[in-house]
Amino acid sequence: MEAYLDNSATTPPCAESIAATQDALTRYWGNPSSLHQAGIEAEHLLSSCRSSVASAIGCEADEVFFTSGGTESNNLAIVGAALANRRRGKRIVTSAVEHSSVMESTKALQERGFEVVYLSVDRMGRVSEQELARAINRDTILVSLMAANNEVGTVQPIDVVRRIVTRVGAPATIHCDAVQAFGKLRVQPARLGVDLLTVSSHKIHGPKGVGALYVRKGVKLNPLLYGGSQESKLRPGTEAMPVIAGFAAAANALPPVSQSLAYVTGVRDRLLDGLRGMEDVRLNSPQDALPYIVNISVYGIPSETMLNFLSQRGICVSSGSACAKGKQSRVLRAMGLGDSEITSALRVSFSRFTTWEEIDTLLHALNEARQTLVRSK
Amino acid sequence: MEAYLDNSATTPPCAESIAATQDALTRYWGNPSSLHQAGIEAEHLLSSCRSSVASAIGCEADEVFFTSGGTESNNLAIVGAALANRRRGKRIVTSAVEHSSVMESTKALQERGFEVVYLSVDRMGRVSEQELARAINRDTILVSLMAANNEVGTVQPIDVVRRIVTRVGAPATIHCDAVQAFGKLRVQPARLGVDLLTVSSHKIHGPKGVGALYVRKGVKLNPLLYGGSQESKLRPGTEAMPVIAGFAAAANALPPVSQSLAYVTGVRDRLLDGLRGMEDVRLNSPQDALPYIVNISVYGIPSETMLNFLSQRGICVSSGSACAKGKQSRVLRAMGLGDSEITSALRVSFSRFTTWEEIDTLLHALNEARQTLVRSK
Repeated sequence: MEAYLDNSATTPPCAESIAATQDALTRYWGNPSSLHQAGIEAEHLLSSCRSSVASAIGCEADEVFFTSGGTESNNLAIVGAALANRRRGKRIVTSAVEHSSVMESTKALQERGFEVVYLSVDRMGRVSEQELARAINRDTILVSLMAANNEVGTVQPIDVVRRIVTRVGAPATIHCDAVQAFGKLRVQPARLGVDLLTVSSHKIHGPKGVGALYVRKGVKLNPLLYGGSQESKLRPGTEAMPVIAGFAAAANALPPVSQSLAYVTGVRDRLLDGLRGMEDVRLNSPQDALPYIVNISVYGIPSETMLNFLSQRGICVSSGSACAKGKQSRVLRAMGLGDSEITSALRVSFSRFTTWEEIDTLLHALNEARQTLVRSK
Repeated sequence: MEAYLDNSATTPPCAESIAATQDALTRYWGNPSSLHQAGIEAEHLLSSCRSSVASAIGCEADEVFFTSGGTESNNLAIVGAALANRRRGKRIVTSAVEHSSVMESTKALQERGFEVVYLSVDRMGRVSEQELARAINRDTILVSLMAANNEVGTVQPIDVVRRIVTRVGAPATIHCDAVQAFGKLRVQPARLGVDLLTVSSHKIHGPKGVGALYVRKGVKLNPLLYGGSQESKLRPGTEAMPVIAGFAAAANALPPVSQSLAYVTGVRDRLLDGLRGMEDVRLNSPQDALPYIVNISVYGIPSETMLNFLSQRGICVSSGSACAKGKQSRVLRAMGLGDSEITSALRVSFSRFTTWEEIDTLLHALNEARQTLVRSK
């Protein structure tokens, strides 16, 4: 591969993560619920993994619940909190630009009688504090807002939610989908004032198939799955040890947020500098977005045409969320962009391992594409 | 470890499985939903894994849906089928000796207004065909029965369920929890006459954190999770590629069922021969049980005392289901056993890798325990 610039879809596992997964498969393969030596060793590993992830999130170990990934964490947070609190109110407040695992969960709750408010966003993809304040009332049992958007990188004003909830006296549990922000921005739940926070392993160079939900002590959730007493009965099933170990190792390997942020900002700026001369390229991400994500439109060249052109040259970018698999972006639509921007959108996303050479490779190929691809009207 | 005889709790990953997991982490780490080269390669791997698991189950590839494990598969089957068919009836028929992920799922459905019949079992742990025939009526939308019991190895008469359902004209979907039977008995869904079948990776020497649900073409299920369009929207979330690859490799590595069965029957018989001279040992498993599981009671020695004694000598067995974590067995209770049998129960479980030396080590230690441990009255 010449340039992997789709790190918001998934990241290559880091060496630490690969080694830890291997170790869990070969040495610590006992069932953590078993009472004998093999089980006890696995239980120790599980406990140490929980501490590692807790430390990366900035919370206590017993506030971390392992799940099968971001989608399950978001579902557990939203459906679990809504059902646990259904006697206290029926309003759920979220935004129009959440990940599909949040939006589809709230839609399913609408069908079960909950009232869901989808806050609109401005041209930068941001919800307004005023709208938040208007939407959150005393019937609101849940607010779910992402930390950073997965398609354009917009950072949402999470920290104002707690103030509004307290001022209004709403019985709301506050959930933050931090899948794209974890390891990239500081997401300590106490700092953000949230009760529930979703993180995923495979966006931070850990294996796919595992994530976690932070649940503040005392916050009530209904489980989605029923069975044994694993994860304090909130998430039964034999623990996914190999990927939990890989996740924890990836979390341990995260450099300080500020260090990666500084490096990736440099990478992002190199791309923006290179794009500056291209008049047919529009920047869709706000200037103050998470620098790990740059969303652009190359007027006249459909996203899919461009993706194929780049892929043939060993360059991986996307047209938006991988989970949407090529469908037109509802995030860009919600931001008020027109068809010509939406149909030609590209998401370029970085990691701390992205090199300047990869950026130059992309810029070179974009120029080539703009000169050789036939433009649609 | 001297003797690992707790293979019904979990199994050591086989070499093929470890290598495949590693490969998915290092070479095929793309997101299968991504449209570029890295994504396409991951998608190819996913597709090949699905075929491998389908071939081991004995079904079509598009009838296999990957989940996070046996617990999620059982929940998806039971809650998913009940909710999808709630307009056709409200009775669910299951047994008193199912795994906790089945029993807790049906209990949760009872709270939502479904009527659940828990069939009793005889002294051998088996439900009777007559009771099944009496319980299944035209209001029955779901029958869930395990293939082989996880604590005593009893094989249930699954194949009669379809005949009863057809004769009665019940609108029932038929689910079989085959977690303990997969790879050990022939579980082809068409042969068993079931619509849904649960299998798990870590019971067949694959990694923990992955399983599958067989869903016969045309059978309707409500999803438990909401999000992207992965697994035909039945199970959204980025696919757990490392453990899916490990699962598929473990499935590919399974020898013919009859070959393993013959070998393990020899292992089991060696244990039974050795136990024959011990008058204070009772065999709780039926003679015609799945030979991979032998449940015994050593009168007067509490299970936990014995487990610790054996664990100190590097011997791993259990007192029952790992998911029950030391709680008294409701399976043995349902079989009509008394306190003296239940409190002293041990489950010894084998795999195709179990050696005769491990059996001899256990027998030696059991003799030592019977001579040295103080008996409770």
